[in-house]
Amino acid sequence: MELTVYLAGQIHDNWRDEVKKKSRERSLPLSFVGPMENHSRSDDIGEEILGEQPGNIAKDDAASDFNNLRTQVLLGKSDIVIALFGEKYKQWNSAMDASAAIAMNKPLIIVRPKDLHHPLKELSNKANVTVENVDQALQAISYIFEEE
Amino acid sequence: MELTVYLAGQIHDNWRDEVKKKSRERSLPLSFVGPMENHSRSDDIGEEILGEQPGNIAKDDAASDFNNLRTQVLLGKSDIVIALFGEKYKQWNSAMDASAAIAMNKPLIIVRPKDLHHPLKELSNKANVTVENVDQALQAISYIFEEE
Amino acid sequence: MELTVYLAGQIHDNWRDEVKKKSRERSLPLSFVGPMENHSRSDDIGEEILGEQPGNIAKDDAASDFNNLRTQVLLGKSDIVIALFGEKYKQWNSAMDASAAIAMNKPLIIVRPKDLHHPLKELSNKANVTVENVDQALQAISYIFEEE
Amino acid sequence: MELTVYLAGQIHDNWRDEVKKKSRERSLPLSFVGPMENHSRSDDIGEEILGEQPGNIAKDDAASDFNNLRTQVLLGKSDIVIALFGEKYKQWNSAMDASAAIAMNKPLIIVRPKDLHHPLKELSNKANVTVENVDQALQAISYIFEEE
Amino acid sequence: MELTVYLAGQIHDNWRDEVKKKSRERSLPLSFVGPMENHSRSDDIGEEILGEQPGNIAKDDAASDFNNLRTQVLLGKSDIVIALFGEKYKQWNSAMDASAAIAMNKPLIIVRPKDLHHPLKELSNKANVTVENVDQALQAISYIFEEE
Amino acid sequence: MELTVYLAGQIHDNWRDEVKKKSRERSLPLSFVGPMENHSRSDDIGEEILGEQPGNIAKDDAASDFNNLRTQVLLGKSDIVIALFGEKYKQWNSAMDASAAIAMNKPLIIVRPKDLHHPLKELSNKANVTVENVDQALQAISYIFEEE
Amino acid sequence: MELTVYLAGQIHDNWRDEVKKKSRERSLPLSFVGPMENHSRSDDIGEEILGEQPGNIAKDDAASDFNNLRTQVLLGKSDIVIALFGEKYKQWNSAMDASAAIAMNKPLIIVRPKDLHHPLKELSNKANVTVENVDQALQAISYIFEEE
Amino acid sequence: MELTVYLAGQIHDNWRDEVKKKSRERSLPLSFVGPMENHSRSDDIGEEILGEQPGNIAKDDAASDFNNLRTQVLLGKSDIVIALFGEKYKQWNSAMDASAAIAMNKPLIIVRPKDLHHPLKELSNKANVTVENVDQALQAISYIFEEE
Repeated sequence: MELTVYLAGQIHDNWRDEVKKKSRERSLPLSFVGPMENHSRSDDIGEEILGEQPGNIAKDDAASDFNNLRTQVLLGKSDIVIALFGEKYKQWNSAMDASAAIAMNKPLIIVRPKDLHHPLKELSNKANVTVENVDQALQAISYIFEEE
Repeated sequence: MELTVYLAGQIHDNWRDEVKKKSRERSLPLSFVGPMENHSRSDDIGEEILGEQPGNIAKDDAASDFNNLRTQVLLGKSDIVIALFGEKYKQWNSAMDASAAIAMNKPLIIVRPKDLHHPLKELSNKANVTVENVDQALQAISYIFEEE
Repeated sequence: MELTVYLAGQIHDNWRDEVKKKSRERSLPLSFVGPMENHSRSDDIGEEILGEQPGNIAKDDAASDFNNLRTQVLLGKSDIVIALFGEKYKQWNSAMDASAAIAMNKPLIIVRPKDLHHPLKELSNKANVTVENVDQALQAISYIFEEE
Repeated sequence: MELTVYLAGQIHDNWRDEVKKKSRERSLPLSFVGPMENHSRSDDIGEEILGEQPGNIAKDDAASDFNNLRTQVLLGKSDIVIALFGEKYKQWNSAMDASAAIAMNKPLIIVRPKDLHHPLKELSNKANVTVENVDQALQAISYIFEEE
Repeated sequence: MELTVYLAGQIHDNWRDEVKKKSRERSLPLSFVGPMENHSRSDDIGEEILGEQPGNIAKDDAASDFNNLRTQVLLGKSDIVIALFGEKYKQWNSAMDASAAIAMNKPLIIVRPKDLHHPLKELSNKANVTVENVDQALQAISYIFEEE
Repeated sequence: MELTVYLAGQIHDNWRDEVKKKSRERSLPLSFVGPMENHSRSDDIGEEILGEQPGNIAKDDAASDFNNLRTQVLLGKSDIVIALFGEKYKQWNSAMDASAAIAMNKPLIIVRPKDLHHPLKELSNKANVTVENVDQALQAISYIFEEE
Repeated sequence: MELTVYLAGQIHDNWRDEVKKKSRERSLPLSFVGPMENHSRSDDIGEEILGEQPGNIAKDDAASDFNNLRTQVLLGKSDIVIALFGEKYKQWNSAMDASAAIAMNKPLIIVRPKDLHHPLKELSNKANVTVENVDQALQAISYIFEEE
Repeated sequence: MELTVYLAGQIHDNWRDEVKKKSRERSLPLSFVGPMENHSRSDDIGEEILGEQPGNIAKDDAASDFNNLRTQVLLGKSDIVIALFGEKYKQWNSAMDASAAIAMNKPLIIVRPKDLHHPLKELSNKANVTVENVDQALQAISYIFEEE
């Protein structure tokens, strides 16, 4: 049994590479999907495909069309969702993806620094598991496959 | 036909009173539900019912049990969700409620100041309507009932 | 038992008034909902609420936000959908509403002139009933309540 | 990950061949399904299997039985739907398939010439993405697989 | 709490009147719905509304359009389904309605003479309850409301 | 807004009367439903309606037909489920009802003495709220209606 | 693309062998599943596994447990259902399987001799296709794969 | 066709090894999944991943997070559920998994000693099959694949 894991969260640093590297080190039977991690391309994808848009709101609306298309396909194909939250950025689309996962009955693991427990309390309460770092998230998934 | 509207969003000021007052002024056939608006009671409800908890995370977890129970009942009874976002606070539970509304096929109206368009672009893209103030949200609902 | 009927179709003439009048004449326990029938207001509703938009496509996109919000609420509340098709206009949103009704397991009655049978054949095939005029549609609904 | 794409739309010219050829040129991991593209066979399939029918409406009804059977199987197997609209023909079954895709939570890409934006505005509003040509549709799908 | 009961089964005798009379005698808070019980009208309803059809199969197909419209509306409104089977007739539409009730998660009570247990064994196995007469079916529903 | 509460759990003492009495004292807008509380009648209902059965397993199977019919109707009508667990009895049908409530997306409140936390840990984890007595369960529901 | 076809219907003759043989002759990419075709074993399977049962109704109830388990697994795995009806036997479980297929949104092909059109009219009306013999059923499935 | 079977039930002895061994002896095309069978590890998994928790209830709550994550993934991947009940232990999570399987429309086989028929009667009534030992459970699954 191989599982597909969607990695929701900010795209400002390379935390997904850490997840993938540590998963390989543990030889976990996982494949990973997620959003476009090139931040400026993610912002520009609407104009890249459709051409210049009339203003920033229209540009953002066009970009989100393509980003949401990608998310809908890949989240739909995944078995587990890991959503990472950090101090910086609004991260409302991370909360959106996490909540969508719950609604689609896909198991959800939240990764967040301990001191974010208060603003995340309702979301953590609905998630399967809340942990503080990527290692713990992979331990949780590894446990699914372990036999003793 | 009378509709029930869930008012998702921060509970730090009385924006819901403004919504209700303006709805009465327009004589809209709406009733409103939403989270506990007394902020400290919302934070303390876990300990109020279950007694003292071992630490802040446990206190938050207990509170979110009761807050999510309330939200699940009242969101489930509503026909439309208005989710308000502002500059302050993390508001991840607002994004969670908004995304849950989309997943439950409940029409969603987002209210946000114009300059938040970028961090909300994916959520706005999935909402039915994004507006900038409470008046526009009520115009949108009023339009559902209008005949000419 | 009172049923709510959504009247999907073009908004260029007053065919819905005919339906309502004939339903009253038959004393059927029906209430009717549907789209905004004032055509220019339906086209302008986006700019009416949100202000001027940058170009015709943006204007249309804004208008459809509010029209689809209305449709989602009212179609969701209805027990039966009547979708009328005629010779003029593209009527793709009528086909969209009719197909949405089928997917939501809401009984669908199509009204169309006989000579449109060919382009509507796949949609008619999935509808419960296809008739040629409003009287027949009301006979079909009346039959639900009749006892002998 | 390989995705299956349903190509909804008119069967009067060979636009699907263009999609398939351009997908191969981009080496996209896609397979394509869609309706019977031989137009007269699509119209005659009811009589081909069931024998002569009593009149044109019965012939059309029989044909749509088999065409809808095909669509239900293949649309059900697909991950993404591309629906193409053009100036000619009623294309109500294309709108029906597009709306069914939305209801089945399958991502929908609409391809249409720019000047059809008005009659398609409600359907475009519910689709994930609306583009003007086949190249843009394939760019949108390619973006799902791209990593930087 | 008042419950709506759909009475599926043959329309060749007045067994539904017996159900309604006995329910009144027990003062049960039930309302009853079901198919058109006038058998010839049920067979002719297609031609009554649409005019003469080309042959018996087309006549039957037209009639079933309207009969299934009625069933879909009324079965959808019901809380419990009673399906009665007897020695005579094919009764495949009764089995269809009973199976649809199971699939819609509506409680199903089968009424059948004891010696039909063999051909009904798979359907009985999926029903909530199988009884031998109308009195027992009403006892079963009465039990839902009883407190001691 | 009035809510219906299903009271799942053992039927060996009158804990439901305590719930109802305390709800009245708090003037909560609740109505209560639940299983047959007369234990011997609950065990005998199969033979009461169907006559003597061939052995105890058949008697139990017949009784559970009618008990599950009752539960399916009443659980389906309820907005919230309270499931009470105690030291005595197997209570597997209470766990079954609680798990069914979760699967039906109905909010679940578990009431159990504190020292049962270990065997109930997985079920508590999926419930909305776990409390230790009936007063706390009613506080939780009361909180849904409170405004400050 | 390979499709799995469930063959519902009587198990008194070997019509399924004819289907399989003709499918192979057409080189269709189909695999077939269905009920136990050994009739006496199908009737006896309850006692074969559970031992002697107290009477014929209990024996039938036990057998249907195992037959319905089989059907639920295999029908759930299938992409298309062919249901064959003939003159003999009650065939209520065939109607049950056909109706279950419709409710599960699985395409349904009914095969029946022409003169059974009247008792099957409601079920035919909800099926995708009704044909008169196995060859036509396979033509219908073959058409799904054909390209011109 | 290969089926995945989830083995729900107590983890105090090695009954799952017996199931797997007997399945291999019968050469059944089955793979098996289930909970962590190392009992103390199952109890400690929360603290193993998250570190020491404040008290036994918190420790249990943390453990159940990870155990339920595992169950949700593996139950979701399974085609059939076998739930074993015995004399000892509360086994409420077994009843929870069994009821979840029913709600997810996954076929359920209950294995229990005969003298537990009374407390399990409602759950048995909703399961597909109830048997007394592992051999009978495998006979039931074997029957799905048998052809004569």
